[in-house]
Amino acid sequence: MELRALLFDVFGTLVDWRGSLIDLAERDVGGEADWPGLVDAWRREYQPAMNRLVAAVDSGSRSWRDLDDLQAETLDAVLAARGLALEAPQRRALVAGWRRLHPWPDTASGLLALRERHITATLSNGHLGLLADLMRFGDLRIDVVLSAQLADSYKPAPAVYRSALRLLECEPEQAMLVACHAGDLRAAAALGLRTAFVRRPQEWGPGGGDDPPAEIPGLIVVDSLVELAQRLG
Amino acid sequence: MELRALLFDVFGTLVDWRGSLIDLAERDVGGEADWPGLVDAWRREYQPAMNRLVAAVDSGSRSWRDLDDLQAETLDAVLAARGLALEAPQRRALVAGWRRLHPWPDTASGLLALRERHITATLSNGHLGLLADLMRFGDLRIDVVLSAQLADSYKPAPAVYRSALRLLECEPEQAMLVACHAGDLRAAAALGLRTAFVRRPQEWGPGGGDDPPAEIPGLIVVDSLVELAQRLG
Repeated sequence: MELRALLFDVFGTLVDWRGSLIDLAERDVGGEADWPGLVDAWRREYQPAMNRLVAAVDSGSRSWRDLDDLQAETLDAVLAARGLALEAPQRRALVAGWRRLHPWPDTASGLLALRERHITATLSNGHLGLLADLMRFGDLRIDVVLSAQLADSYKPAPAVYRSALRLLECEPEQAMLVACHAGDLRAAAALGLRTAFVRRPQEWGPGGGDDPPAEIPGLIVVDSLVELAQRLG
Repeated sequence: MELRALLFDVFGTLVDWRGSLIDLAERDVGGEADWPGLVDAWRREYQPAMNRLVAAVDSGSRSWRDLDDLQAETLDAVLAARGLALEAPQRRALVAGWRRLHPWPDTASGLLALRERHITATLSNGHLGLLADLMRFGDLRIDVVLSAQLADSYKPAPAVYRSALRLLECEPEQAMLVACHAGDLRAAAALGLRTAFVRRPQEWGPGGGDDPPAEIPGLIVVDSLVELAQRLG
C-alpha cells in the first residue's frame, strides 16, 4: 500500500529545544541560574505532566489543557524545587520560548525533499497556535499542522495517532511516524503505522539522545531527514 | 489589536472550481453531457446540502459527514434530475476532481506575500485530507490547514469560525476572513472577525461572481490576493 503521509514529531525531531531554550534563557532571563540543568529538569517534567492530564481527561475529572498551560505549571514546580524566583514576564518568556526553537540543520531541506512525494504533517504535543508560530519561526514548510490537541489528548495515547489517520484519510500502513523518541514510535507501530527513527544525539546535549527501538519490525533508522528522503526514494 | 491570522475560503477564493471541473469532466468523462450546466447545478446543491446536514447534526439526528460524501450524494441527484447515467468510476473521478482544482493566477504569489506578516490558514468546508491534496496540487503554501471538519460543522455556522479562532489563539479582531462570498464574510463579521472580499468575477463563468457585502463595516475589497498584501502593508 502506498505511503500517503509522513507524520513528524516536532520537539527534538525537527527542532533543538534544549540548545534553543538555554540560549534564550541566558540571553533574555540571565542571572546566575544553571540554565542547562534547569531546562533539562523542565523538559523531564513534560511527559509525566501530559500523562497525568491524559489520565484525568479520560476519567472525566479534568478538561484538556494546552502545552503552554502545562509548561507554565511544570516550570513553576522546577523553579520552586530549586529555590529560584522569577518574575511573571520572565516565566512567560520561557514558556513562549517553545515557539522559537531552532530547527536542526537538515530539517528545512529534509522536509522539502520529503514533501515531493508524500503529504507532510506535524504530529506534536504542541497545540496548533504554538506550532504555527514555531514552523514560521524556523521557516519550515509542511503541508498540514496536526496536533494532539485535535484529539484532546497527548502522545503516546492511541487517540492522537488515530486522529491523524482519520484526518489525513490514511490506513495505518499508509502513514509513517518520523520521530527521535522510542516511546512515540512504539505507540505508532502498535497501531500499524510505519516508523522511522531519526537519530538526534544532541537532543539532550552531547551524547544524550534516545536509542532506536530495535524491536519494531521494519523500523527505518536514519541520521537526518535528508537521508530519510533518500531512503524513501 | 494586531492582525495575527488570515483565514482563506478555498473554493472560489483560492481556486477555480468551475473551470477546473469542466475541463476535468470533458477530458476524463467525456460524452455528450452539458458539463458547464451540470457543474453549475452540482455546485448549487453544495450549500443547501451542507445546511441540511448542519441542522441534522445540531439536532442529533445525523453525524457529520465529509465533503466527498456530500458531493457524491448531490452529484447523484443532479445526474438523476437530468436523466444522465454515469458509471461509478466516472462519478468517483468527478468527486475526486475537487482535489485537483487550479488556483487563480494570483493565488500562489499572493499567499506567499501575505504569510510574510501573518499566519495564513485555510478555513474551508473541504475536509483536511481533501485540502492537503488540493493545496499540494496547486503548490500553494499555507501555514495551517483548517477546515469546518474540525468543528464537525459547515460554514457559515458560527462554530466553524470560532474553532479557527480557538485553534490559532486569536481574538476575533486578530483574524481576518478572506473570501469571495458575501454569506461567508457576513457570518465572520457577525462574530467580530475582520473581513476582506476578493472579487472573483469568473467564479461562475463570465460575469458570475458575488457582489461585495457593502453593509459590513471596514470590509476591504480587492481584485487579487497580491492587492490584499499591498493593502495590508
